[in-house]
Amino acid sequence: MGMFETISEQRLHGGIQGFYRHQSDACGGPMRVAVYQPPQAVQQRCPVLYFLAGLTCSEETATIKAGAQRLAAELGLVLVMSDTSPRGTGIDGATGDWEFGEGAGFYVDATEAPWSSRFRMHSYVVDELPALLATHFAVDVSRSGICGHSMGGHGALTIALKHPSRYRSVSAFAPIVAPSEVPWGRKALPRYLGADQDTWTGYDACALVRRQTFPGTILIDQGEADQFLEVQLKPELFDQACAEAGQSLLLRRHAGYDHSYWFIASFIDDHLRHHATALGLL
Amino acid sequence: MGMFETISEQRLHGGIQGFYRHQSDACGGPMRVAVYQPPQAVQQRCPVLYFLAGLTCSEETATIKAGAQRLAAELGLVLVMSDTSPRGTGIDGATGDWEFGEGAGFYVDATEAPWSSRFRMHSYVVDELPALLATHFAVDVSRSGICGHSMGGHGALTIALKHPSRYRSVSAFAPIVAPSEVPWGRKALPRYLGADQDTWTGYDACALVRRQTFPGTILIDQGEADQFLEVQLKPELFDQACAEAGQSLLLRRHAGYDHSYWFIASFIDDHLRHHATALGLL
Repeated sequence: MGMFETISEQRLHGGIQGFYRHQSDACGGPMRVAVYQPPQAVQQRCPVLYFLAGLTCSEETATIKAGAQRLAAELGLVLVMSDTSPRGTGIDGATGDWEFGEGAGFYVDATEAPWSSRFRMHSYVVDELPALLATHFAVDVSRSGICGHSMGGHGALTIALKHPSRYRSVSAFAPIVAPSEVPWGRKALPRYLGADQDTWTGYDACALVRRQTFPGTILIDQGEADQFLEVQLKPELFDQACAEAGQSLLLRRHAGYDHSYWFIASFIDDHLRHHATALGLL
Repeated sequence: MGMFETISEQRLHGGIQGFYRHQSDACGGPMRVAVYQPPQAVQQRCPVLYFLAGLTCSEETATIKAGAQRLAAELGLVLVMSDTSPRGTGIDGATGDWEFGEGAGFYVDATEAPWSSRFRMHSYVVDELPALLATHFAVDVSRSGICGHSMGGHGALTIALKHPSRYRSVSAFAPIVAPSEVPWGRKALPRYLGADQDTWTGYDACALVRRQTFPGTILIDQGEADQFLEVQLKPELFDQACAEAGQSLLLRRHAGYDHSYWFIASFIDDHLRHHATALGLL
């Protein structure tokens, strides 16, 4: 674990909103991450909620648009907003397509060249970030929750289902739940993971929940006016998989809401309370 | 009053966040404005709070960054975020300087050519916007409050002090209070209004409050780590002017907070409650 440097730190809701840059072992280069430290972090180590963003987004997106810090400050919850991929990789084909490459890491550990050298967001989120947080912030990483939006909802679900002992709670906004079966996943997964569809199921929430359930209710919010609902998201597939697997799921459908951060901002407080309850803050 | 067209409308906190484009008589060209309609606006005309943004900002800035809609939805308050100047004016010198021209209208009615044909943000906010709102939204413009940030705080204070019968409440974040005496004002006001400093006092909150007080307490929040505090903002000048004039002022200084929207987001709820109380919602 190398250099960890502060880009900016600003007072927000009595705590500190920071942006940081660090050298990543998992991703083989520099990464940026946003961390919100609530006022309680001055006195004690606080539990942490990871927010994984979606396609085209960065560590800035949810930090600026989700409005999560207000309630996090009340609850005493550290918020970690990571980037969606390594940046400036210089890999041919890594930029220019919003659905693949930089900004579209899909929270997998790529096994296919040339992506396997840098696009290892799964290890980055699961292993590297908690170690960094424990070193540089007043965080109790033994109390962690994870959530995300769209591709980041896919990230949150798959990471929690693969590592249920690492996270006490999981939730998602408009997640991709069956990447093996929808255009976004069927475009990205073969390039990152190869043609064998069996390996894709290691990053497919519908497949994963059938192997091992998560100990606790999964909260998912979905807007019914979401432009990606029918082709890319298909929450009914996860609903069915959870029912078959005996996974407790609270899937809420909201009339009129679309795929944007206005939708996320409208329900972020419910997600924070969902995690705060599991993390012993409520 | 010409065309009024919808750029986008999205569901947010049970209401509608919209962006609109319209032809402005006051500014002689197209203007953009953001309006948040709370859920209550379906049933009844709601009071309105104007938020005037600062230098470099647009109708998007506070809409995305201030986090005002959550509590506005609870209170039943319409939010109006206007742009900071006309755009695309084509006037020589109107772009390229963040402290003057487009993005820096200073909420005055310019009297000097070539600015006087387009840069009439005072009339736009005071007269044209309320008429537009009453026509196109469920707004009770007889119940209006006004607030703003930095140059927009200057706008809110001067507009309320010049038209105390039009607004029931006024507040500001880190406002310019004495533009006649600080670099930002002394650069912009002569170009918009001419060299006669007496005319500047018509847009100077410190001068205005000495002529006519506002019926109600003025709320101002100021961060003590604000990089513009000592040279451009000087809240102590307004504090002194209010004391001399008998104007009720609640000036709160907050250690550690800077000039950013993180500061605004931290205290926006207090401002909404200040206005909601005066507007009969609390």
